[in-house]
Amino acid sequence: MPTRRSPARRPTMKDIARRAGVSESAVSFALNDRPGVSEATRARVRGVAEQLGWRPNTAARALSGEGAATVGFVLARPAHTLGVDSFFLQLVSGIQEVLAERHLGLLFQVARDVSEECAVYRRWWAEHRVDGVLVADPRAEDPRPDLLEELGLPAVVIGGAPGAGHRGASSVWADDAGAMASVVDELTALGHRRIVHIAGLPELAHTRRRIATLRAEADRRGLTEVRSVTTDYSDTEGAAVTRRVLGASPAPTALIYDNDVMAVAGVAAASDLGVEVPRDVSVVSWEDSALCRIVKPRLSALSRDSVEFGSMAARELLSLLDGGPPRAARVPVPRLTARDSTGPARPV
Amino acid sequence: MPTRRSPARRPTMKDIARRAGVSESAVSFALNDRPGVSEATRARVRGVAEQLGWRPNTAARALSGEGAATVGFVLARPAHTLGVDSFFLQLVSGIQEVLAERHLGLLFQVARDVSEECAVYRRWWAEHRVDGVLVADPRAEDPRPDLLEELGLPAVVIGGAPGAGHRGASSVWADDAGAMASVVDELTALGHRRIVHIAGLPELAHTRRRIATLRAEADRRGLTEVRSVTTDYSDTEGAAVTRRVLGASPAPTALIYDNDVMAVAGVAAASDLGVEVPRDVSVVSWEDSALCRIVKPRLSALSRDSVEFGSMAARELLSLLDGGPPRAARVPVPRLTARDSTGPARPV
Repeated sequence: MPTRRSPARRPTMKDIARRAGVSESAVSFALNDRPGVSEATRARVRGVAEQLGWRPNTAARALSGEGAATVGFVLARPAHTLGVDSFFLQLVSGIQEVLAERHLGLLFQVARDVSEECAVYRRWWAEHRVDGVLVADPRAEDPRPDLLEELGLPAVVIGGAPGAGHRGASSVWADDAGAMASVVDELTALGHRRIVHIAGLPELAHTRRRIATLRAEADRRGLTEVRSVTTDYSDTEGAAVTRRVLGASPAPTALIYDNDVMAVAGVAAASDLGVEVPRDVSVVSWEDSALCRIVKPRLSALSRDSVEFGSMAARELLSLLDGGPPRAARVPVPRLTARDSTGPARPV
Repeated sequence: MPTRRSPARRPTMKDIARRAGVSESAVSFALNDRPGVSEATRARVRGVAEQLGWRPNTAARALSGEGAATVGFVLARPAHTLGVDSFFLQLVSGIQEVLAERHLGLLFQVARDVSEECAVYRRWWAEHRVDGVLVADPRAEDPRPDLLEELGLPAVVIGGAPGAGHRGASSVWADDAGAMASVVDELTALGHRRIVHIAGLPELAHTRRRIATLRAEADRRGLTEVRSVTTDYSDTEGAAVTRRVLGASPAPTALIYDNDVMAVAGVAAASDLGVEVPRDVSVVSWEDSALCRIVKPRLSALSRDSVEFGSMAARELLSLLDGGPPRAARVPVPRLTARDSTGPARPV
């Protein structure tokens, strides 16, 4: 067992005072932006503080009411579904980029469900751990905005459409309705009239928006064989639903999957049934990722910039923390990147 | 813009004292495990505290030297490579499960490189933000264990082989050498003599262990056409190296990829060249994931339990925080799950 050296000592205001040749109270005035020292002294003190690597103690700052300098993010998803999701790590990485500029930490937690997520918020709040939170996966019936408002925790709902009742929270949102309409445009232009949308979790708000838009677009065009089926986002359910709908008669000629993993599993399931993509059925993945580009055939997919989505959410939270009003910011509409999995509908 | 209600008030020791009918100092003694109150009073005070949802203020606890109740985890990977990695979210989820039992938070940060990662540790340390850290991706020349020892931050190196110079840090590690030997056993039993290992980043310690083991196993068996090529783990480089090695003459009959994404990209690249898996070339993915199970052909892969890997790392860190000695804990050897991408070597 190696011996430990005694740990390095953190630089204190006393160290800075000694090095700068001023009193400790002058250092305190200078570093806390208070009057009582000249501009020249302030500049010298700050220079020395930077040289020594001095940082305000987070705990002291939190106790003095200046905030925890930390943002919280809870993801309520079962552990085993996390590894396959290409979206969240990119989102977190975008969040980080913005928080890092302000030296804010990201406190991250995985929860089993929304009620456990709410318990985490209550605990973080009671322990003064975070200044605000980012909320993912908004739901049709969502207890979180009310709770966060009650606690007075500033929040940004990621994927929350404007006017969806987020109380005092801001939101960043993607135009799912516009994106769905553009996919239906593209598929009907290729002659597809029988379309099945293999959707994600039915309780999520964006799942409902996509289903409602598909319904409206089909009605507008007089398409009677268009429908949505909800799943748990897993490759297993994606494959099972694919087998079921392709076994029906007449079978759909186009399938829209709510994530990349289900789309890839669906293509494999179709191939097992002797159904070829795109000859017999066209496939669109709602989420674009490396996965869509590396499988054969390469998948046509709705692309968006998930890193930028995260950055935008973090910027909205910073704006709330700076005292700005809650608002809804929209990310660019996801656009369809056509690759090898979409083609003309096979004549009946 | 909705009006905000005034936020809920956090329960204080005064509230508990009033409700329990004791003095504030009795509450403080009871909740801080100090003598001065009877066991009956201690029990009553704790019951009331729980009823009211009282929690110690993290900031106050940190200032009083009781620790930040937070563990840090920095991932030094470029943002755009994060989304495709099936390993890290599962790892984080396993870490969480263990930390949550002790109400410890996970402060998470993405950094561009190891030097930025070191700067994060220095800042966290200076700001008293974390009690200890989990260190990923150990390197052949790694500045981090020395830095963390200098700072006195307890650390667990994830994937760090024992005796690899982690100073006072603990490690959890997988037996890469044993796993590589078992893959070579399997492939040679199928008649493969020309094998290329499409490896990950050359600076990572586990990449070097795998390359050295493959070299030793080939020498032991007198196989002269076995080698490793390093990459950046991306699907792009995985596909490019695959095209290059399959274009050589004689071409390898088996390929071992250091992650799932490169293996899938490699199978697609082979197919573009008219090379069929497993008829013309066998493929093994070092990382098992949903991806390996959903593509066609399904990929033979080395499976390990990444969630458990994370949990084990967190448990080792808790042991260090509780004053235990640094130690090396080994996870079960990854084992080969044979699927449809491996078969007998094609006769020359």
